[in-house]
Amino acid sequence: MTQYSAFNLELREGIAHVQINRPEKINAMNAAFWTEIRDIFIWIEETPEVRVVVLSAVGKHFSSGIDLMYLAQVGAQLGKEVGRNARTLKRKIEELQSSFNAVDECSKPVLAAIQGYCLGGAIDLISACDMRYSTIDAQFAIKEVDMGMAADVGTLQRLPHIIGDGMMRELAYTGRTVLGDEAHRIGLVNSTFIDQEELMGGVFNIARTIAEKSPIAVQGSKEMIRYMRDHSIADGLNYIATWNSVMLQSEDLRIAMTAHMSKKQPEFKD
Amino acid sequence: MTQYSAFNLELREGIAHVQINRPEKINAMNAAFWTEIRDIFIWIEETPEVRVVVLSAVGKHFSSGIDLMYLAQVGAQLGKEVGRNARTLKRKIEELQSSFNAVDECSKPVLAAIQGYCLGGAIDLISACDMRYSTIDAQFAIKEVDMGMAADVGTLQRLPHIIGDGMMRELAYTGRTVLGDEAHRIGLVNSTFIDQEELMGGVFNIARTIAEKSPIAVQGSKEMIRYMRDHSIADGLNYIATWNSVMLQSEDLRIAMTAHMSKKQPEFKD
Amino acid sequence: MTQYSAFNLELREGIAHVQINRPEKINAMNAAFWTEIRDIFIWIEETPEVRVVVLSAVGKHFSSGIDLMYLAQVGAQLGKEVGRNARTLKRKIEELQSSFNAVDECSKPVLAAIQGYCLGGAIDLISACDMRYSTIDAQFAIKEVDMGMAADVGTLQRLPHIIGDGMMRELAYTGRTVLGDEAHRIGLVNSTFIDQEELMGGVFNIARTIAEKSPIAVQGSKEMIRYMRDHSIADGLNYIATWNSVMLQSEDLRIAMTAHMSKKQPEFKD
Amino acid sequence: MTQYSAFNLELREGIAHVQINRPEKINAMNAAFWTEIRDIFIWIEETPEVRVVVLSAVGKHFSSGIDLMYLAQVGAQLGKEVGRNARTLKRKIEELQSSFNAVDECSKPVLAAIQGYCLGGAIDLISACDMRYSTIDAQFAIKEVDMGMAADVGTLQRLPHIIGDGMMRELAYTGRTVLGDEAHRIGLVNSTFIDQEELMGGVFNIARTIAEKSPIAVQGSKEMIRYMRDHSIADGLNYIATWNSVMLQSEDLRIAMTAHMSKKQPEFKD
Amino acid sequence: MTQYSAFNLELREGIAHVQINRPEKINAMNAAFWTEIRDIFIWIEETPEVRVVVLSAVGKHFSSGIDLMYLAQVGAQLGKEVGRNARTLKRKIEELQSSFNAVDECSKPVLAAIQGYCLGGAIDLISACDMRYSTIDAQFAIKEVDMGMAADVGTLQRLPHIIGDGMMRELAYTGRTVLGDEAHRIGLVNSTFIDQEELMGGVFNIARTIAEKSPIAVQGSKEMIRYMRDHSIADGLNYIATWNSVMLQSEDLRIAMTAHMSKKQPEFKD
Amino acid sequence: MTQYSAFNLELREGIAHVQINRPEKINAMNAAFWTEIRDIFIWIEETPEVRVVVLSAVGKHFSSGIDLMYLAQVGAQLGKEVGRNARTLKRKIEELQSSFNAVDECSKPVLAAIQGYCLGGAIDLISACDMRYSTIDAQFAIKEVDMGMAADVGTLQRLPHIIGDGMMRELAYTGRTVLGDEAHRIGLVNSTFIDQEELMGGVFNIARTIAEKSPIAVQGSKEMIRYMRDHSIADGLNYIATWNSVMLQSEDLRIAMTAHMSKKQPEFKD
Repeated sequence: MTQYSAFNLELREGIAHVQINRPEKINAMNAAFWTEIRDIFIWIEETPEVRVVVLSAVGKHFSSGIDLMYLAQVGAQLGKEVGRNARTLKRKIEELQSSFNAVDECSKPVLAAIQGYCLGGAIDLISACDMRYSTIDAQFAIKEVDMGMAADVGTLQRLPHIIGDGMMRELAYTGRTVLGDEAHRIGLVNSTFIDQEELMGGVFNIARTIAEKSPIAVQGSKEMIRYMRDHSIADGLNYIATWNSVMLQSEDLRIAMTAHMSKKQPEFKD
Repeated sequence: MTQYSAFNLELREGIAHVQINRPEKINAMNAAFWTEIRDIFIWIEETPEVRVVVLSAVGKHFSSGIDLMYLAQVGAQLGKEVGRNARTLKRKIEELQSSFNAVDECSKPVLAAIQGYCLGGAIDLISACDMRYSTIDAQFAIKEVDMGMAADVGTLQRLPHIIGDGMMRELAYTGRTVLGDEAHRIGLVNSTFIDQEELMGGVFNIARTIAEKSPIAVQGSKEMIRYMRDHSIADGLNYIATWNSVMLQSEDLRIAMTAHMSKKQPEFKD
Repeated sequence: MTQYSAFNLELREGIAHVQINRPEKINAMNAAFWTEIRDIFIWIEETPEVRVVVLSAVGKHFSSGIDLMYLAQVGAQLGKEVGRNARTLKRKIEELQSSFNAVDECSKPVLAAIQGYCLGGAIDLISACDMRYSTIDAQFAIKEVDMGMAADVGTLQRLPHIIGDGMMRELAYTGRTVLGDEAHRIGLVNSTFIDQEELMGGVFNIARTIAEKSPIAVQGSKEMIRYMRDHSIADGLNYIATWNSVMLQSEDLRIAMTAHMSKKQPEFKD
Repeated sequence: MTQYSAFNLELREGIAHVQINRPEKINAMNAAFWTEIRDIFIWIEETPEVRVVVLSAVGKHFSSGIDLMYLAQVGAQLGKEVGRNARTLKRKIEELQSSFNAVDECSKPVLAAIQGYCLGGAIDLISACDMRYSTIDAQFAIKEVDMGMAADVGTLQRLPHIIGDGMMRELAYTGRTVLGDEAHRIGLVNSTFIDQEELMGGVFNIARTIAEKSPIAVQGSKEMIRYMRDHSIADGLNYIATWNSVMLQSEDLRIAMTAHMSKKQPEFKD
Repeated sequence: MTQYSAFNLELREGIAHVQINRPEKINAMNAAFWTEIRDIFIWIEETPEVRVVVLSAVGKHFSSGIDLMYLAQVGAQLGKEVGRNARTLKRKIEELQSSFNAVDECSKPVLAAIQGYCLGGAIDLISACDMRYSTIDAQFAIKEVDMGMAADVGTLQRLPHIIGDGMMRELAYTGRTVLGDEAHRIGLVNSTFIDQEELMGGVFNIARTIAEKSPIAVQGSKEMIRYMRDHSIADGLNYIATWNSVMLQSEDLRIAMTAHMSKKQPEFKD
Repeated sequence: MTQYSAFNLELREGIAHVQINRPEKINAMNAAFWTEIRDIFIWIEETPEVRVVVLSAVGKHFSSGIDLMYLAQVGAQLGKEVGRNARTLKRKIEELQSSFNAVDECSKPVLAAIQGYCLGGAIDLISACDMRYSTIDAQFAIKEVDMGMAADVGTLQRLPHIIGDGMMRELAYTGRTVLGDEAHRIGLVNSTFIDQEELMGGVFNIARTIAEKSPIAVQGSKEMIRYMRDHSIADGLNYIATWNSVMLQSEDLRIAMTAHMSKKQPEFKD
């Protein structure tokens, strides 16, 4: 497996464990981070053995968001012509967005396990995951507002679907910190754990449960739920009907049925 | 009133009570179920005396979902040609979807009262209702994932609007059981009751309240809320303005006003 | 500053305080209310010094909704020709809608502070605000159903994004009263306060926090969150990329950075 | 085959010939017409032997549109209560729309062959067909405007996609007559023929060509083109990719290939 | 009637004649033009006697587009801060757009009569009209490209619906001149006339025809066709069904029927 | 410049000339074709000196579409499991689509110059270009129908926007050949030329005209026209307002103005 500078990557029993690994920099997102995460998710996409992904971080904190050094480098590329600067900036933003789109568009479920700080760009990142779990003392904040800018790599687009319109606005305008408990209450995380050890144990348990299911079923469900953020009920029903018109011809249905009848645990191919 | 094999049907004081009635089969959804529910909702649509619908189930459980015998029969119709099988399957899925679309598109409010198991296809069914109420020990699970398939009669399309994106994904991928209390907390049900008797009493109270309101007002509200799942704010405002440009000329407004002035209970025509 | 008959208006330290001021009529929305609120929000839009808006009400109650006298006046304009009546009514409804659209489309955040009754049209109004806060004994009800009509100035369009589809329908069909506590639990308000004094103190604290942030950041965030109610994730990402391709060239980013480095409070231009 | 009162119906060599047959009434659309056309297209949908449909009319004229006697009957059902009248009318219009939706949604191509008058409702009808062909002296007019109403069974929705926005408006507002030649120039018909005999010969030639093609290919193409009237390029590309992921596993592709190699005419199953 | 500096305005027999009147400046669009056209269309909207609008221009040319002096004035308002300049420019562009939106959104049909030059902003203007007619020697060109900018008051949004995607791009990228004949062939104008006198006669004939129709029918048709540029077939069918559920209760239908029976010219109220 | 096996590539005076170069195989699209075209358009995107692209083909014919050998190779990758085959096929189709998406999404205009055969996949390709020009004897046909499949790399999605709904369907169902003249009449090509030499001369003239314009203006126009295929008028107007709020601050506007005043040819930076 390729070595990465900003990440650890492991694959065991169908679960890819993607770990941000720059604890000495509070896991700030530097240039390597942005390209490596895209490469990792391309690899995940192309590796049938991966059934589910856990995204966590080494150290006391999940991530402090984008690395300010990296931001400064981007700024240094700008010249005097406003129009051409805009062209350059739009491409750079689209490039960063594409890194987190790779997480969102991953056909396998991605579970985020969060402890400590989860700030700015880290909120954009976890908004692109399927589910979020945290320690009770995790600290979430949409910090972009304090940098004089609107978040532009996905928070403002994906988070309203997760926590609703009213709380979304308060958090985006004030940048205030939300602790694990409140995060749970408003739906930002699905559940909380007492400490990091419990958190990792709990998240891996959920991941294992998913890894044992039919990948045809899990990935089809993910495709449909993602699709519904942007489409009408009628379009969604048509899509699943088209999709299942082939997938119900797959052998997974038969394997599941047989296992169900014989009260055994089914085993599905990747 | 027509007799049905999978349902009981009663109409009293403006409330149609639709009861799934195959308790010996845990109210599994067989061939009769799928055609009869469509017929029942056509009848509801065409019967002005029906102002509101309560959907419940006879016995210890609400429903275990689609009947596996029925599923096997569908499977038996498939041949060897993948393309034509797909055509057959797509039509069959659309046929099943249309049964629950009849619930969703019903112009009168539909209240689901749920006890015991509510699994697989039963989740698709209650997602198509307006509101859901349950006993505290009701058990909800998106069981399709354990049959090697993605749910295809509405759960993945309608439930995200009810419980939000984050919890939606966990339940769809893991198929885990949610009890009444958690169902209430995540918005899957609007409230819970201590047992089935309380449940039925409580749901019929709400139904009676609605049945006394102006049907012009209630049905107009339902049309608008349904419309908003799929349309922009601007489109929704235009739609209600067009709608009310005629409905405000209806006599219900005058009846309500007069009753309000004289502090009497208004009586509205069907 | 212009004098208004239905409102008090103040601007202090970047916060515009818009107060409904017809306490003797339970702040019912009369003809003056509907035109003045539009004028006030045009002024807010055109006044760069306004960074954030607090919308509250004088007296024991927030508002009882539309003034029935005003409704009667509108009714008096109708003739016998159904088609031309419809044309008249559609224009009138669109006119009322445009009053609350002015609140929704305001580029600066609007915080509603609610005590006592918040009924009918008042729910339409607070649904058009960014965030809602209330006393614990505030009483919310979608009263339109009791007037024989579907709400037509925004509740049915905007509220589902705030409280979810399931509870939305119950409140719209039954018109039942929700108290502060439940309002908090279902997301209708972001938090509750023990009494009106605490409420106003709490809301102004949040408003002050927002007023100190970069208006480029706050207003950009609002534009994006509003946009997401009606657009796809992909469209939203493209919009923020286009938007930030110019806004990241603004000086606010540099001011924020400099302040961050020197650990000082940044000061942004309007 | 069922007998119809307003239509002749024939099936020969994969081509269903649907002929409006009330020449003594200029093929005006009466009650029987509206229900029978729906029944006919349900039969077409369920009959795999039908590969393509020709829709023509007996006599000198294609159709004068809706039968005024029928319209009068509908009017007679209205009472005094404006709101409930509106409910009745909306259902009736939706019923008529559903008759032509059955044409539009038919999975097999429908070719209209038009001579003489094609007025009012007849324009709604041919707008729901795939292609239109006419004699050079055919006369087209959107006559609804002369009846004091906007066309409501599909002309205003489907025709802009066929003739463009500019000419659409002129024809809808003025109700002026377009002859075959101009109809060809503006894209309303695909080609014109010198007289009715040539027309029928020409249209059946095109129908035969289509009937010999793979139904998997033809019906897939129709599904995609219909879908594109309402969806984005990206959605359309995703849909065809999902669709073809199963259809390319069908045997038609292999049959076509083999025939291509051996320079023979391929034969496809229905 | 109000006097305008950039326009002549007349109302005769239901036809409002709006004439651009700055022939000495080739009818260039100055500050007065942009505000007056909005005022004129508000007046048209509120004046029931206006049934149809003819938009023409005094002198040898229709219009050379935006006045460069006006553009220079706008430029003079910009400062050094790129972000706040962008805010100013966005508002200014939206203000100009709203002037032509008033034409597009006008509930009555607007017919443009074009001679000589029709350049830049003038193309934006005629794209917002319902139909376009010209002399054979009229000259059309999307001149914005030669000013180093993309057209931003409507050409790029509305014209593709009129002339199709392929020709649209050629004209936008090259800025080349299209003469009357080609304009007719590609659908940019509905017909051409030999000279200005014939043009005005022909356009007023069409306008008179429309003015005699039922305004309920004409305005309903316009609303529906406008709606279809942006909505699905299903949404459009639902909208006309809702709309006509009231409009078919209007007396215009009865007046048209009676006139039809008695072979007289119907007379409709405004 | 990189060497390609299926293409020639040249850049002269701002015009990239992309030539399909497999004349001995009638320019059939083999594996190399599909990956190289994507690489070429990435290079075009990243090379500011390219202002406009001409896409043509070496030899007597433009292209016969996808290479059947390549298709056979894809088929050879399929196994027995229908569901996993579908997954493989969907990814392959998406990969091919992404090759032509690169043409469609290219920020610079792409002009296709077509002679001889333009069949099957070649129609998908030219549908993704901005404009099309051909010799009078060019032959266009949607050949996919004769291979037992629906076109799946863009024809069915993009061509309706170019030639309208009615003719689109005839060509897709029959696969019939359209010659240059008819192609011009229905809008498939913008103009025709007497032979290949004239064609190349004519297309390069248009390309040169575009290359001399401001790239800010041309690329902005393209972005807006592309956007309008999928978005509402209101969304389009908002997008251009946001876009131009920065682009009008670019120096191109000033350069164009100055040149206009001094009657000189402006010179724009890339």
